[in-house]
Amino acid sequence: MGDIHHSCQWGIGQRWGDKPTETGMSRLALSDSDKTVRDWFVQTTESLGCTTTIDSMGNIFAVRPGLRNDKPPTFAGSHLDTQPTGGRYDGILGVTAGIEMLKVLQDNWVETEYPVGVVNWTNEEGARFPMSMSSSGVWAGSIPLESAHNLREVGGGTATMASELARIGYLGQTPASHESIPMGAHFELHIEQGPLLEMANKKVGVVKGVQAYKWYTVTVKGRDCHTGTTDLKSRADALLTASKMILHSHRLATTNNALASTGILTLKPGSTNTVPGEVSFSLDIRAPSDETVARMEQLINTDFPAIAAGEDVLNSNEGMTKGLPCTVEITRDFSSPATLFHEDCISSVTQAAMSVLGPDSKNQIMEMTSGAGHDSVYASKRCPTSMIFVPCREGVSHNPAEFCKEEDCAIGAQVLLQSVLRYDRL
Amino acid sequence: MGDIHHSCQWGIGQRWGDKPTETGMSRLALSDSDKTVRDWFVQTTESLGCTTTIDSMGNIFAVRPGLRNDKPPTFAGSHLDTQPTGGRYDGILGVTAGIEMLKVLQDNWVETEYPVGVVNWTNEEGARFPMSMSSSGVWAGSIPLESAHNLREVGGGTATMASELARIGYLGQTPASHESIPMGAHFELHIEQGPLLEMANKKVGVVKGVQAYKWYTVTVKGRDCHTGTTDLKSRADALLTASKMILHSHRLATTNNALASTGILTLKPGSTNTVPGEVSFSLDIRAPSDETVARMEQLINTDFPAIAAGEDVLNSNEGMTKGLPCTVEITRDFSSPATLFHEDCISSVTQAAMSVLGPDSKNQIMEMTSGAGHDSVYASKRCPTSMIFVPCREGVSHNPAEFCKEEDCAIGAQVLLQSVLRYDRL
Ligand SMILES: NC(=O)NCCC(=O)O
Ligand SMILES: NC(=O)NCCC(=O)O
Repeated sequence: MGDIHHSCQWGIGQRWGDKPTETGMSRLALSDSDKTVRDWFVQTTESLGCTTTIDSMGNIFAVRPGLRNDKPPTFAGSHLDTQPTGGRYDGILGVTAGIEMLKVLQDNWVETEYPVGVVNWTNEEGARFPMSMSSSGVWAGSIPLESAHNLREVGGGTATMASELARIGYLGQTPASHESIPMGAHFELHIEQGPLLEMANKKVGVVKGVQAYKWYTVTVKGRDCHTGTTDLKSRADALLTASKMILHSHRLATTNNALASTGILTLKPGSTNTVPGEVSFSLDIRAPSDETVARMEQLINTDFPAIAAGEDVLNSNEGMTKGLPCTVEITRDFSSPATLFHEDCISSVTQAAMSVLGPDSKNQIMEMTSGAGHDSVYASKRCPTSMIFVPCREGVSHNPAEFCKEEDCAIGAQVLLQSVLRYDRL
Repeated sequence: MGDIHHSCQWGIGQRWGDKPTETGMSRLALSDSDKTVRDWFVQTTESLGCTTTIDSMGNIFAVRPGLRNDKPPTFAGSHLDTQPTGGRYDGILGVTAGIEMLKVLQDNWVETEYPVGVVNWTNEEGARFPMSMSSSGVWAGSIPLESAHNLREVGGGTATMASELARIGYLGQTPASHESIPMGAHFELHIEQGPLLEMANKKVGVVKGVQAYKWYTVTVKGRDCHTGTTDLKSRADALLTASKMILHSHRLATTNNALASTGILTLKPGSTNTVPGEVSFSLDIRAPSDETVARMEQLINTDFPAIAAGEDVLNSNEGMTKGLPCTVEITRDFSSPATLFHEDCISSVTQAAMSVLGPDSKNQIMEMTSGAGHDSVYASKRCPTSMIFVPCREGVSHNPAEFCKEEDCAIGAQVLLQSVLRYDRL
């Protein structure tokens, strides 16, 4: 808990309670506060006997030698970047629990069979540079280095991942690749970010996989015109059309048992008395299976152009004057197929949880699928991987009031330590 | 035409054609380009024998003495600021036609009975500082000086009207008031900004009044949450709710024969994988009668909170999973009641148009009501006022491709000159 709150002094967000630690976090990837917490991570892990390597995506790998060093390390990993209105646990818990693992090994003179390590992945959130898990994706060979380097920050700024890595001194020499930096296994402790553990009164989630998701940018073009002199039927209103699409994506999500969300929307020109001629918005589609996400994509690719053209799709025009047609362009920016974790890691986590929770553990463990993406998705493409979930208050995440009890953080850290040690033996 | 295009070298906007003058304008109020065109206005009118006065809203009054100067001048007036994606005629035509009037009087040694003047009003568009006609409103005593001075620029900047007036050197000493700067009458030449004259094949619109309009800021609050882990029924999605409101405002506009438009929308926190917890948008409501606008306001004040609460208003929830409630706050920022112009001015314009257009004038003149607001609305509260409309291509305005034929600009300028001279005699 000391490390969590110490490291949260950099990038403090919105306050939600009176106590000193009752604030959220706002530590966007590669910002000044991210640089400071990275410096702290390097210094802390090195003081615990690790060697650190920084790769060309700014991922930081801290490795503690084992009895033998001819096989790759078993890693604990997560991320220190946050959402603009994020909390103190998402990602941060996993990295600081990794540091805690190093401390326990050090304090108890434990020598592992092979090296063990802790990794801090860059821009997991995809909040500032709009591709989640971008840097574990490059490491895994799934995302080209250049695409990730060229990602431009959201909100109209000009910074790219490459320019910001260079600016804060974290553009490492080592290639970001599983070939340069191989891993024996990857374990990630994370808050659940959903309500299931809390609702079921369970303590540990053994994560067997991650649901599928895709991100899109949707750009609607109409025509700027005067709000006072242009009657409704003579308008090609890009914002009205985008609003219909946002509602429609929720209708499709409802009928297909999927999720659809828009978190970013920008428009031009942005004047009270000019009907917007251009609107751009993000669309995040998720579902447990790749097939459902593919069906949603297909429906969107068919229905959005129809809505733009003014057709009535599931009553999208009900009660409204029909205007002039707009056009729409849909770009897929990112795709993370449904992921299944490795049996060996899943069973290491299960056994570790049983040992930590003791006699009643059966009633306190739950197998689950993650709704959120994690760096473990890409790690799992190159080494055995799984995750440990702990409950968070009311399932709230990506919100300043995100909260995980000390007791639950501690249980999670113990399960992480034991999972790594078990796998090391294995 | 020379003055129009000469003055449009400052603040050039998007190109729409190949010829040098085939661009729009982007000259926001009190920007650097607005300062330069103001300097040109002052210098040009002074070189034509005028004395200029700058008031505390940066309105510039250029006055040419008459035979007798014991009564206030008859003014031609309009504005030199534009929309962010505006054209070369909206406002600019009225001011440059006023300058043309001064030239004709000078070239022909005309002495008027009383003084005549040309006024450039500040921030007519309300595009940068979100209150249209703000500075004629202060002059008329309808808008408090402080409210106007404290208007903050849209788009999240910190500049205010007062700070920008000071920065560009146009914060004048003379109080912005009809008492300090009285007017005998106010005539305004303007492009129609709508399609009626063109469709009816008419040359001059005699404007008898202006429709009513009100501007609002609507702020919807929900809760930031994770797009991947929060099911649809556990979300208080501020953007989904705002989208429903935007659609609803169009439904209400359709049934009430009114206009509803949203030109600005901002959201927080602005991340692809965080459901927005807060959305703020502008709402512009217009109708010919005050009663209709009042009814629209009443419906919005009733229906928006119901939509925020999750109730189904005119099928606003159709086909969608019901989420958690949001809250909504509606602030009225600006109100311009329906305006009727003065009989004496209307008949000056009618007679001027008949004399300019000659024998067939009956078929080329149309009486009309303006859909857009103009500084003449506030001028009319303190002196006899009316307006002259000329056709613009396809009725397009607040768009770079806004266009008025040279021939039509010339007819408008001649009608303006003769209206002022007729009123001066009167
Ligand atoms: N854990 C987490 O919030 N990751 C962000 C990636 C996602 O959008 O799921
Ligand atoms: N003429 C004109 O476009 N004025 C702007 C004020 C408004 O009607 O919104």
